[in-house]
Amino acid sequence: MTHPAIGDAFGEMIRDAYAVHLGVGRRPLAGGRYPRPVIEVIERDDGLINGALAGHYLTEPDEWRTFDHRAVRLARGRVLDIGVGAGRIAIELQSRGVAVTGLDTSAGAIEVARDRGLRDTVLTTVDEFSRATVRYDTFLMLGNNLGLLEGPERAPVFLAALARLAAPGARIIAQGTDPYGTTDPLHVAYHESNRARGRLGGQLRLRLRYRELASDWFDYLNCSVSELEALVAGTPWRLKSIDDKDHPYYVAVMELIE
Amino acid sequence: MTHPAIGDAFGEMIRDAYAVHLGVGRRPLAGGRYPRPVIEVIERDDGLINGALAGHYLTEPDEWRTFDHRAVRLARGRVLDIGVGAGRIAIELQSRGVAVTGLDTSAGAIEVARDRGLRDTVLTTVDEFSRATVRYDTFLMLGNNLGLLEGPERAPVFLAALARLAAPGARIIAQGTDPYGTTDPLHVAYHESNRARGRLGGQLRLRLRYRELASDWFDYLNCSVSELEALVAGTPWRLKSIDDKDHPYYVAVMELIE
Repeated sequence: MTHPAIGDAFGEMIRDAYAVHLGVGRRPLAGGRYPRPVIEVIERDDGLINGALAGHYLTEPDEWRTFDHRAVRLARGRVLDIGVGAGRIAIELQSRGVAVTGLDTSAGAIEVARDRGLRDTVLTTVDEFSRATVRYDTFLMLGNNLGLLEGPERAPVFLAALARLAAPGARIIAQGTDPYGTTDPLHVAYHESNRARGRLGGQLRLRLRYRELASDWFDYLNCSVSELEALVAGTPWRLKSIDDKDHPYYVAVMELIE
Repeated sequence: MTHPAIGDAFGEMIRDAYAVHLGVGRRPLAGGRYPRPVIEVIERDDGLINGALAGHYLTEPDEWRTFDHRAVRLARGRVLDIGVGAGRIAIELQSRGVAVTGLDTSAGAIEVARDRGLRDTVLTTVDEFSRATVRYDTFLMLGNNLGLLEGPERAPVFLAALARLAAPGARIIAQGTDPYGTTDPLHVAYHESNRARGRLGGQLRLRLRYRELASDWFDYLNCSVSELEALVAGTPWRLKSIDDKDHPYYVAVMELIE
């Protein structure tokens, strides 16, 4: 078969999900006639594939999970929403009068977030953006975006970039998932094979696919709290608290070491 | 990456969709906690990938599209439901007192259809089953299963097998899709590339993926009514009528030539 083209699969998916949400514009229709939901397809490097409804990127606060609300309440001062997507969290903060910047590497996602009213956006990586002179009090990594730590190699680099962007007393509020409670043999075997390769068990190697497009393969980390502690050690951040009322999901707060 | 294992991807998907439908048993949960819908992932050989909610295989008659109802009303006598899946159509016919057999090549699908109460099932191909001595008055190929004609090579072989199973006056009632109304450049280019390879434009080369499993690659035909007429010519069947009130979907009735 032909391989999918590499491109902004996430952005194209968000654009389509937004069009379906609005009910106007070019949007996926079965047979050009029946609306079809937009599906996010994620492939893992062991051949696993999963689909999920993309509409969750466009949910309103009353549809959020409770840990999102608890996480958002911890935001203070200037906020950088990392991996802002369609702006679900940032738009709500903006409406509450919070000074929030949305960062994403997906042009399509930023376009949708702006169209939905998010005023301050940056289309770049955290690394590039960390050369800017702006400083933030809160870094938000919700929607499981603690995963952006990727693994032991990337985490200290990523956390150092955030430290360069950090005002004194800054905090990172990140939602993660502990993957090790599963009994699914497929996931258990994947964790074991990861460890055999010197990776963290939940260091997922993924790519996103949407229609003819695929993202590049990337690492995305689901880790336990103790693994997170080890990743944060030696960086300019310290793990301050964990809210795991919704185990296996948790909200981690890290604060800048003065 | 590791390639997915070849297996009964359709059956595993149907099993999971059924568990979600019932709300009991092993079923997909995000983080072992939140129910997640079962998604059917279909890859096309040009790299296109699409997801759809698998729940449609388990819909009740009041959720069906209108053409399904019109098609079912044409059934008479002994019925063979080809590609019975989870039994959506066959179970309804059985409840109306129709003598119906459900045929599928997926063990998982047959298991679910039987669990849902379908009494007469066969787990085999049409080709194998055509050695049986049983005869049918109606062959149902709904849920777009006109696609099982595959293309110009397979269609006459498939239709000959049905003729061997046909009682005098038998009819095939098949729902298809005319793919050529689309303006989507991705599909238009695919149709052109198919024709350049000597295939029908809508002769899709697909595989189904579910979790770690993939089906083998198979041809599945979306064709226009005039293409269907050409495929049926020279077989033991004649195209009797087309109901295209729901264009691009249509219901074709073919009858056995006496």
